[in-house]
Amino acid sequence: MTTVAAYAAPAAKAPLERTTIERRAVREFDVLIDIKFAGICHSDIHQAREGWGQAIFPMVPGHEIAGVVSEVGPGVTRFAVGDRVGVGCMVDSCRECDNCKAGLEQYCTGGATMTYNGVGRDGEPTYGGYSEKVVVDENYVVRIPDGLKLDEAAPLLCAGITLYSPLRHWNAGPGKKVAILGMGGLGHMGVKIAHALGAEVTVLSQSLRKQEDGLKLGADHYYATSDPKTFEELRGSFDLIVSTVSAPLDFGMYLSLLKSDGALVNVGAPEEPISLNLFSLIGGRKTLAGSSIGGIRETQEMLDFCAEHGFGAEIELVRADEINEAYERVLASDVRYRFVIDVATI
Amino acid sequence: MTTVAAYAAPAAKAPLERTTIERRAVREFDVLIDIKFAGICHSDIHQAREGWGQAIFPMVPGHEIAGVVSEVGPGVTRFAVGDRVGVGCMVDSCRECDNCKAGLEQYCTGGATMTYNGVGRDGEPTYGGYSEKVVVDENYVVRIPDGLKLDEAAPLLCAGITLYSPLRHWNAGPGKKVAILGMGGLGHMGVKIAHALGAEVTVLSQSLRKQEDGLKLGADHYYATSDPKTFEELRGSFDLIVSTVSAPLDFGMYLSLLKSDGALVNVGAPEEPISLNLFSLIGGRKTLAGSSIGGIRETQEMLDFCAEHGFGAEIELVRADEINEAYERVLASDVRYRFVIDVATI
Repeated sequence: MTTVAAYAAPAAKAPLERTTIERRAVREFDVLIDIKFAGICHSDIHQAREGWGQAIFPMVPGHEIAGVVSEVGPGVTRFAVGDRVGVGCMVDSCRECDNCKAGLEQYCTGGATMTYNGVGRDGEPTYGGYSEKVVVDENYVVRIPDGLKLDEAAPLLCAGITLYSPLRHWNAGPGKKVAILGMGGLGHMGVKIAHALGAEVTVLSQSLRKQEDGLKLGADHYYATSDPKTFEELRGSFDLIVSTVSAPLDFGMYLSLLKSDGALVNVGAPEEPISLNLFSLIGGRKTLAGSSIGGIRETQEMLDFCAEHGFGAEIELVRADEINEAYERVLASDVRYRFVIDVATI
Repeated sequence: MTTVAAYAAPAAKAPLERTTIERRAVREFDVLIDIKFAGICHSDIHQAREGWGQAIFPMVPGHEIAGVVSEVGPGVTRFAVGDRVGVGCMVDSCRECDNCKAGLEQYCTGGATMTYNGVGRDGEPTYGGYSEKVVVDENYVVRIPDGLKLDEAAPLLCAGITLYSPLRHWNAGPGKKVAILGMGGLGHMGVKIAHALGAEVTVLSQSLRKQEDGLKLGADHYYATSDPKTFEELRGSFDLIVSTVSAPLDFGMYLSLLKSDGALVNVGAPEEPISLNLFSLIGGRKTLAGSSIGGIRETQEMLDFCAEHGFGAEIELVRADEINEAYERVLASDVRYRFVIDVATI
């Protein structure tokens, strides 16, 4: 066991504060990672404030982890001390179900072990990336290619893969018209990735406030959803819309923007049930779907893809003592486009 | 112009009665069809009672039409007098949009011309199959293979294609577990077709009342949705569920029956919006979709498929003066499984 410094929420809705936690001794297939950077994901806030149901406290959030390997267990074959690595939303899964075997560990039918606010296969609570070190089984660790800066790579581990996976699964690419709904931490990665995949990219954002950024990051078009004309003009336009929005939407209106056989895929979602007229799916054989992060193999593929195309996330680096303020700014959509904690400041 | 006998609803909610209508003179690409049989579809009742919004009266319902060609226009190349033919839900479309060009006339962005309760490209109202004759452009007529009886073929033109199209599109076949939700006019065709496609077929019906029929028609399993244990036992089972139900459902419960990457496809739908928690799609990358009939080419393919496998619909033949009674029995789910009007009795 190793005692490491961390930032934790001691209870639901309490501000995060500096503390220490225990990390397990390195087991046969484990790697010990010196965490360098940890992204702040909107879902950290949901969970730290117990917005998604009962949570485990104290909670050390953080599932966008970038660091360097400082020790490996005797059975580890994929990593060596000094390797630049990342950990995303999962640190384990059952490894036996059809989904695990297919590399879709995020849909593990036995339940994947989440990086924090979870309980490991050993019965111990998991603590996330707002901490100096973490111990993870090598099968749930990915390599960060040399071409990526560690701080800009951290948000790829959640925001990046959350967009990459559905964009690939629903065949975003040349000749396809793709809309990214919402221009935040997730959405800005959607723009970069969809553009790099060769799709024609449209941002649908509440206002035109971030239009310049969107076009710079690779969007071909930028529309405000607050303008009713947007829905007239873009009717029947898209092969794929990826919604990163967790506010309630008029889904019928967004489905009307799809071509026949188009898909509206939700990676964000309101906590409350939505209302939907099924005729908006029947007319045009349309799909409403959801997607959650991506598997480990696909997360590696995404990192390699980003490195090849020369981009990470757009980030604002913060000190650990700025986390609570950063949370407020995330809630106010006042971030372009991801806060990343410099773990050296913990 | 030809005057023909028909059964029509003179006004919304009024009983259907015998009347006469005018059919247009045969144009260059038209075929005149002597109608032999017309299926009674639940949607005939919805429309005759104006349940789906404003309708055109008098209304001659009927979009499951089987008959014999009695005259062809000079430009007709695909049909000759004496041919056994069918007409389904559409009698025209724009022919120019991407969907029409792709053989997906049912999703014509210019709006397909419906067989009845529609307005043709010539501005005239359309009248359906509860009548002695109909004149239709040859491009919207399909051939009924010799192996199919005309009366059993009629319901294939709507009920058959409505199930065939999604089952094919979502790859029902060997190794796939498919559930058909609802065991009525649509559902019983779903069972036959999914079985013939080689899928493992489960019927999900309110009760076990029709279990014997379901198993005889090709279902491998039969479950009652009124039994809560059904949902425990079948959790995560299906690749595809096709819902033929128009009553409101708990969609979260049905989505829980899908494997990851599974699809719940609606060919029936409640008139009112449904309530849906999007997390039931996100966990498992699931799809909620819709599908509407099928294109003309695919309708021909379906008829050929049914003939090859030696089945039509399960029908109960009725006289024209029994239509109103048949409507009541459809509403009471008292039909196994499709009423077909013997048009000789009009």
